[in-house]
Amino acid sequence: MGGNGKEKNHAAELSNHFSHLKIADAIENYEDSKYVIFGVPFDNTSSYRRGSRLAPNSIRIAYDNLESFEPNYGIDLTQCKISDLGDLSVYEDVSYVLSEVEDVTRIIFNDRKIPVMIGGEHSITVGALRNLKDVSMVIIDAHSDFRDSYFDNKYNHACVTRRALEILGPNKIISVGTRSTSLEEITSPDYKKVRFITANEVRESGISNVISEIKNSISDSVYFSIDMDGIDPAYAPGVGTPEPYGLSSVDVRSILTSISDKIIGFDINEMTPLYDNGNTSMLAAKLIQDFIASREKAILNKNIK
Amino acid sequence: MGGNGKEKNHAAELSNHFSHLKIADAIENYEDSKYVIFGVPFDNTSSYRRGSRLAPNSIRIAYDNLESFEPNYGIDLTQCKISDLGDLSVYEDVSYVLSEVEDVTRIIFNDRKIPVMIGGEHSITVGALRNLKDVSMVIIDAHSDFRDSYFDNKYNHACVTRRALEILGPNKIISVGTRSTSLEEITSPDYKKVRFITANEVRESGISNVISEIKNSISDSVYFSIDMDGIDPAYAPGVGTPEPYGLSSVDVRSILTSISDKIIGFDINEMTPLYDNGNTSMLAAKLIQDFIASREKAILNKNIK
Amino acid sequence: MGGNGKEKNHAAELSNHFSHLKIADAIENYEDSKYVIFGVPFDNTSSYRRGSRLAPNSIRIAYDNLESFEPNYGIDLTQCKISDLGDLSVYEDVSYVLSEVEDVTRIIFNDRKIPVMIGGEHSITVGALRNLKDVSMVIIDAHSDFRDSYFDNKYNHACVTRRALEILGPNKIISVGTRSTSLEEITSPDYKKVRFITANEVRESGISNVISEIKNSISDSVYFSIDMDGIDPAYAPGVGTPEPYGLSSVDVRSILTSISDKIIGFDINEMTPLYDNGNTSMLAAKLIQDFIASREKAILNKNIK
Amino acid sequence: MGGNGKEKNHAAELSNHFSHLKIADAIENYEDSKYVIFGVPFDNTSSYRRGSRLAPNSIRIAYDNLESFEPNYGIDLTQCKISDLGDLSVYEDVSYVLSEVEDVTRIIFNDRKIPVMIGGEHSITVGALRNLKDVSMVIIDAHSDFRDSYFDNKYNHACVTRRALEILGPNKIISVGTRSTSLEEITSPDYKKVRFITANEVRESGISNVISEIKNSISDSVYFSIDMDGIDPAYAPGVGTPEPYGLSSVDVRSILTSISDKIIGFDINEMTPLYDNGNTSMLAAKLIQDFIASREKAILNKNIK
Amino acid sequence: MGGNGKEKNHAAELSNHFSHLKIADAIENYEDSKYVIFGVPFDNTSSYRRGSRLAPNSIRIAYDNLESFEPNYGIDLTQCKISDLGDLSVYEDVSYVLSEVEDVTRIIFNDRKIPVMIGGEHSITVGALRNLKDVSMVIIDAHSDFRDSYFDNKYNHACVTRRALEILGPNKIISVGTRSTSLEEITSPDYKKVRFITANEVRESGISNVISEIKNSISDSVYFSIDMDGIDPAYAPGVGTPEPYGLSSVDVRSILTSISDKIIGFDINEMTPLYDNGNTSMLAAKLIQDFIASREKAILNKNIK
Amino acid sequence: MGGNGKEKNHAAELSNHFSHLKIADAIENYEDSKYVIFGVPFDNTSSYRRGSRLAPNSIRIAYDNLESFEPNYGIDLTQCKISDLGDLSVYEDVSYVLSEVEDVTRIIFNDRKIPVMIGGEHSITVGALRNLKDVSMVIIDAHSDFRDSYFDNKYNHACVTRRALEILGPNKIISVGTRSTSLEEITSPDYKKVRFITANEVRESGISNVISEIKNSISDSVYFSIDMDGIDPAYAPGVGTPEPYGLSSVDVRSILTSISDKIIGFDINEMTPLYDNGNTSMLAAKLIQDFIASREKAILNKNIK
Ligand SMILES: [Mn+2]
Ligand SMILES: [Mn+2]
Ligand SMILES: [Mn+2]
Ligand SMILES: [Mn+2]
Ligand SMILES: [Mn+2]
Ligand SMILES: [Mn+2]
Ligand SMILES: [Mn+2]
Ligand SMILES: [Mn+2]
Ligand SMILES: [Mn+2]
Ligand SMILES: [Mn+2]
Ligand SMILES: [Mn+2]
Ligand SMILES: [Mn+2]
Repeated sequence: MGGNGKEKNHAAELSNHFSHLKIADAIENYEDSKYVIFGVPFDNTSSYRRGSRLAPNSIRIAYDNLESFEPNYGIDLTQCKISDLGDLSVYEDVSYVLSEVEDVTRIIFNDRKIPVMIGGEHSITVGALRNLKDVSMVIIDAHSDFRDSYFDNKYNHACVTRRALEILGPNKIISVGTRSTSLEEITSPDYKKVRFITANEVRESGISNVISEIKNSISDSVYFSIDMDGIDPAYAPGVGTPEPYGLSSVDVRSILTSISDKIIGFDINEMTPLYDNGNTSMLAAKLIQDFIASREKAILNKNIK
Repeated sequence: MGGNGKEKNHAAELSNHFSHLKIADAIENYEDSKYVIFGVPFDNTSSYRRGSRLAPNSIRIAYDNLESFEPNYGIDLTQCKISDLGDLSVYEDVSYVLSEVEDVTRIIFNDRKIPVMIGGEHSITVGALRNLKDVSMVIIDAHSDFRDSYFDNKYNHACVTRRALEILGPNKIISVGTRSTSLEEITSPDYKKVRFITANEVRESGISNVISEIKNSISDSVYFSIDMDGIDPAYAPGVGTPEPYGLSSVDVRSILTSISDKIIGFDINEMTPLYDNGNTSMLAAKLIQDFIASREKAILNKNIK
Repeated sequence: MGGNGKEKNHAAELSNHFSHLKIADAIENYEDSKYVIFGVPFDNTSSYRRGSRLAPNSIRIAYDNLESFEPNYGIDLTQCKISDLGDLSVYEDVSYVLSEVEDVTRIIFNDRKIPVMIGGEHSITVGALRNLKDVSMVIIDAHSDFRDSYFDNKYNHACVTRRALEILGPNKIISVGTRSTSLEEITSPDYKKVRFITANEVRESGISNVISEIKNSISDSVYFSIDMDGIDPAYAPGVGTPEPYGLSSVDVRSILTSISDKIIGFDINEMTPLYDNGNTSMLAAKLIQDFIASREKAILNKNIK
Repeated sequence: MGGNGKEKNHAAELSNHFSHLKIADAIENYEDSKYVIFGVPFDNTSSYRRGSRLAPNSIRIAYDNLESFEPNYGIDLTQCKISDLGDLSVYEDVSYVLSEVEDVTRIIFNDRKIPVMIGGEHSITVGALRNLKDVSMVIIDAHSDFRDSYFDNKYNHACVTRRALEILGPNKIISVGTRSTSLEEITSPDYKKVRFITANEVRESGISNVISEIKNSISDSVYFSIDMDGIDPAYAPGVGTPEPYGLSSVDVRSILTSISDKIIGFDINEMTPLYDNGNTSMLAAKLIQDFIASREKAILNKNIK
Repeated sequence: MGGNGKEKNHAAELSNHFSHLKIADAIENYEDSKYVIFGVPFDNTSSYRRGSRLAPNSIRIAYDNLESFEPNYGIDLTQCKISDLGDLSVYEDVSYVLSEVEDVTRIIFNDRKIPVMIGGEHSITVGALRNLKDVSMVIIDAHSDFRDSYFDNKYNHACVTRRALEILGPNKIISVGTRSTSLEEITSPDYKKVRFITANEVRESGISNVISEIKNSISDSVYFSIDMDGIDPAYAPGVGTPEPYGLSSVDVRSILTSISDKIIGFDINEMTPLYDNGNTSMLAAKLIQDFIASREKAILNKNIK
Repeated sequence: MGGNGKEKNHAAELSNHFSHLKIADAIENYEDSKYVIFGVPFDNTSSYRRGSRLAPNSIRIAYDNLESFEPNYGIDLTQCKISDLGDLSVYEDVSYVLSEVEDVTRIIFNDRKIPVMIGGEHSITVGALRNLKDVSMVIIDAHSDFRDSYFDNKYNHACVTRRALEILGPNKIISVGTRSTSLEEITSPDYKKVRFITANEVRESGISNVISEIKNSISDSVYFSIDMDGIDPAYAPGVGTPEPYGLSSVDVRSILTSISDKIIGFDINEMTPLYDNGNTSMLAAKLIQDFIASREKAILNKNIK
């Protein structure tokens, strides 16, 4: 039994009949795509409720039930040039995973495509940021994630914003939805270098004032990172570290879609199907659609290709 | 062993000790009832998350925990002349089921009673509509349900509003909560013949403006159909096709109770206990109570019997 | 709106379209039936894992998936003259419920029919026994149920066998599968008046010796009561009081079917869908089928009607 | 083997290595504590969805994931002098349990400490109230709990507010979130002696008006009782008796924290992990933190110790 | 943005970092593989408990936890030349799916490789069989699957064995574990053309006699089809149509591994993760390993490559 | 508020009303006890299905439902002098936890008491073994746990038997139920220094021969460690790493109780309530009872105190 030409034809012929699980609207190859989706099934630094390693496929399965047409923007997602690379090969070590994410997103950024990374836990965001400078960052998160290290690990998912600050510098990061932090974090002199808009502040100021503030302070290139626990557990029950009194799903969508034309990288993370009723996977899937559809619409409106 | 008179007395005597599962306030016989509840345990055209065939009994069990007294309206539901016929005998074929629903609701409408149909999937609504003309229809739904056919089936649950339009004609149908539709549907020339009030529009206009619009456009006879997925998954997690960014449970109640005096037929559908924590069954049970109590109160206020 | 003749015809006409949830093979009326199934949705004396009140409908729903034909006996269950009365109307008080069960089963016994009672908790058995004398009783149970009273209640489900002994007298009761009892029970002078065949003894003697012993000691009329926790939790996970090291499902079937020709009353109880994966409901449903099919076959073989 | 001195040293030495499950911030002994947490794992008068007996430990496990620092108030909970006594030893009889609660809270009140009682079912509140007079009471609840007795039991959880009225007298009790009551209750002449602020009224008046009313009517000492079903099932799915159309979690927090400086006793009850996705336990845990942190902050602001 | 050479290198470079979900030991390409695994995520003719469409990925995820080394046979699965093609692209129509399965397995059979098909429902087996003649077939199944058609569909999963008989002819098929059939099936004149070894017969004869009978009657080429419901629900709770009194997992393994050297095609189906605790996925994964490891060992022993 | 004498009396008085969750029969203080139960809520080296950190309390809650009287041995467990210390205080680092277990069990062994340790994961066993020499060890496990290190950690739960061999030396350890190992492990020259009795071997030899072999090879002092995954997933579904084809629960009980008179230390581990239906907790609770009751009975028989 060998690998002669005839058999290779069979492999090719067979591949027409098969598909790997991917985001339903990701009908393009990498080369022809603008949005490059991939999963990072890693949850090794999480301690409370694990399972975010199972999220990428759970979100792909949920996405399958969404219409390709997004009526708010009049956008057909199958026209949006989306590819889905599958899941990054990961191992136990967070440093290795971050380095893999860094390598992969470097290629994608260099090709002027937009990475759409599905976690896994929040720690993975740092790998993508390492390729960036002079960009703003918007984070949705219940937690400040501002520890210098956690369990002796600087790359624990509780340290993401701190690592981001080191990479991007002061006054570049806005984190929305904060309602959990530690004394150690809040009293850090660096804490003020990030703008934490608490969930209470969103409720008090109103979402449109929050969006105005964000719009006024970001630069033209934004990395957007959604930790699903930023959203209230009523809307996103299946997360690793639920915190009451969160943002509404609609407010998170508003923030995302109001600045999507500036977004050059995107991730969504910390969802765990082990504690979900299916609706958190669905919301994560929809947020990916909202991001791409709103961005395409904004670009159409600007007559920019 | 036979069927002599003595034994028949025994059957009658026994029946005093037994009850079939029914809506707790449904203490009337059909003849003496005004509201005629029945279940349609059918979910055969559903593909994503099945299980709505199990909803009627799940809702009956949940209803059992509600008080018979509805304090918002000061109405005692046991005085409302409600009967519960049990579940329609259904088979695999949707056409057969629609024809059964048509036959049964024809009798109920002819007797000037109000059918309260518990699905099962949304497709069943079409059977009831076939008996009606010159009525308005109000639908709560996340989906436009406006496909001409789906999987080669014109009676799939994705085609309900389209079928309704064919029966009732243009400018008769208002569907509230829309946030999922396809390009094929939205570009259909018939799409404008239905008023789709999107969930976004409800949030932007406010529920009282939406209710005003509905009140201004409906006729004196309204068929009201609640696809539970119109409500946000936070409030109604156990549905077949969850869609984020939905209506609040309170807003749906407001729409329903503000026009209940004009409602001549009612259904509630697409709930599935397989994905529920029990609270969707409870909300469906309560919406049935809200409908009947608010309608009875409105009628009392009008001094109409 | 009234109750005139025309409307009554409508009620009758409607009833052709509807069915209440019942055991699928229960196609007879009470008068024409030989086996009279009914549920007793009562679990009020249970303290550990409640929910057996939900079992009757759960078992009916599972039964729906069984074939009507039982191949081990070549019996078509739809020919077995089975009726299903629905669920007994129960209230919180166990004494009331027992008295209802007593009244209902008295009628059934008097009509020379066989009650097939679906619990609900084990306590309900006592109501049926009150109508019987000079009968043997076979119980499947992990527990001796031999307390004189429990939580000040002589009718708690922990006292069933003790109450049965008081009704039927010594050397009439065999309880198979025992593996949990208290010092108070085992040292009671009455304990020896019941033959407790422990689960260990079944494993050591072998099921055929156990069946021989049972056959040798019972009289021609047997009441058979299955507490589902007699079966090992591997086969029957959804029970109120699981006990490891139980009987196999096949052994319980063997005991039941080997003496079914003598059984004049039957119940199955203590199943709770709240802790089930669906398979305990299915096993309970199948045991009902096994009982009726094996009994009918045995009667056919004896040329007895 | 004996109890000599040497061994006792071992017991003491061992105890340094062990901890019993308790609220993570409860690092004080009873004597040195101001807030005295304890569980009452009792759910025996509950009939619909049991399981609140499992809530105290479920809430302790959830609490473990909260930060000790509460950023809204800038309070470190480990500085708040909290002890956790474990769970009250309970038996089946509600009268016994109430008497135990009464004894325990008498000691705590006499020591001028604040009991923080974790149910279990709502009935337990009555035990604490028996030690109080001339205090106001604020209740969060979906139900009026105003039956005189239920299932022949005056201490059923459906009678809590009625019992409270008998103890505290008229115009002392405000119950917020009401949306379920019976005709018997609402027509009782005593019903007006309690101020029931319905969930509808909260939505219509706005939460700040509600809080103003509460502040204006309470005395300087308030007992605060949270029946978790007062909160909407979207935020608190795991409760024994869910009722749609409830209060938001944020509104309940606002009421609680706005008057926490006057609270001299607190309980939280009716949560059941059997129907939870983990988020109801977390919300209950957080409400305990909100209570203590906001109270400590208010006291700091008043320069009162 | 285009598709120039440089970008294509990037796509290739990226692909080194990614993998699609596949059976962990499937480290070969199609050309170099001997065992060709693929999923068929189709469950459209199933009516009772759907969800087998989700089984292929659930089994792949479970497989990930198995050691690559199979100690019973001393075989390292990574040396067994296994490929995993992913999941067949399926649509709603069973005829289309069967035709796809037929096309794909024809190529695999022609390349003298062994298809290892993961369902989805049992109906898919028929597609593979269409390529075969002069082979024996061994089926593990609780059901005779011998209806001529079901719900007007000859390719329903209840008709698999009947269709197989039409393809393979009489005395070629052995189905083990039968315990559910209908009168219509068992009285069909064709029923005797298949050897149904009931689960009872397995228990009575003993598994080694059953294996001897199978070995004596099969030809040198065998197609092996495992409907997971053949196994008792204690071992395989997560199936679409559970039937009590089934085969033990060990007996099914014994049958499979005793003849694996003759197996030229294999499938495993009817597992549904929606009703599973994870252990049915794991058992299905292990049976795939058992098949391949035992077959490789048998071939090694025969000095056949 | 201080710590004066009067208040201390209150603390003591209060403690009479409270209990911490413990094994129901553990009514003794440490000093007066012979069996010292404690939990080790640690699962940090587990990667597949976490949650064994939640097992100690889950097992305590299940135990609550067992009778104190064990009828197989005629032993009243409340007479067996059992204490429950609660849960060891653990942190993230496995080395720290092992050192804590070592310290605690050293004290217990020195006091000639028997530690009964409830995991948590299997890794914890090593801490207890460090205090022992010249003892035999019997392990129940599906896995050989014989890796030298895993994820760079010599104390991972996959290395337990290897570490045990280093401590106890060759020919001292018997591990029963093996069915998963790696090539690296089985080819290690040290593998033969442990007697691995595979699950297949148990089925082929019969449990009594296995027990004879064990009795013949052990010394007078035995440490017994039960990894719950040694038992088949049918009986123990809630484990971290399920493996099909395991031991029956009855066989594991037989092994344990046949040598319990020689056991000087005992642990039970790897149970996880997150994947359980409640029955694995119950089986673990019962195995603790079986151990103590059978050991006490054996000692009684020997007239040894
Ligand atoms: Mn985060
Ligand atoms: Mn977070
Ligand atoms: Mn619809
Ligand atoms: Mn819909
Ligand atoms: Mn019993
Ligand atoms: Mn029992
Ligand atoms: Mn209450
Ligand atoms: Mn309440
Ligand atoms: Mn089949
Ligand atoms: Mn089958
Ligand atoms: Mn182990
Ligand atoms: Mn293991």
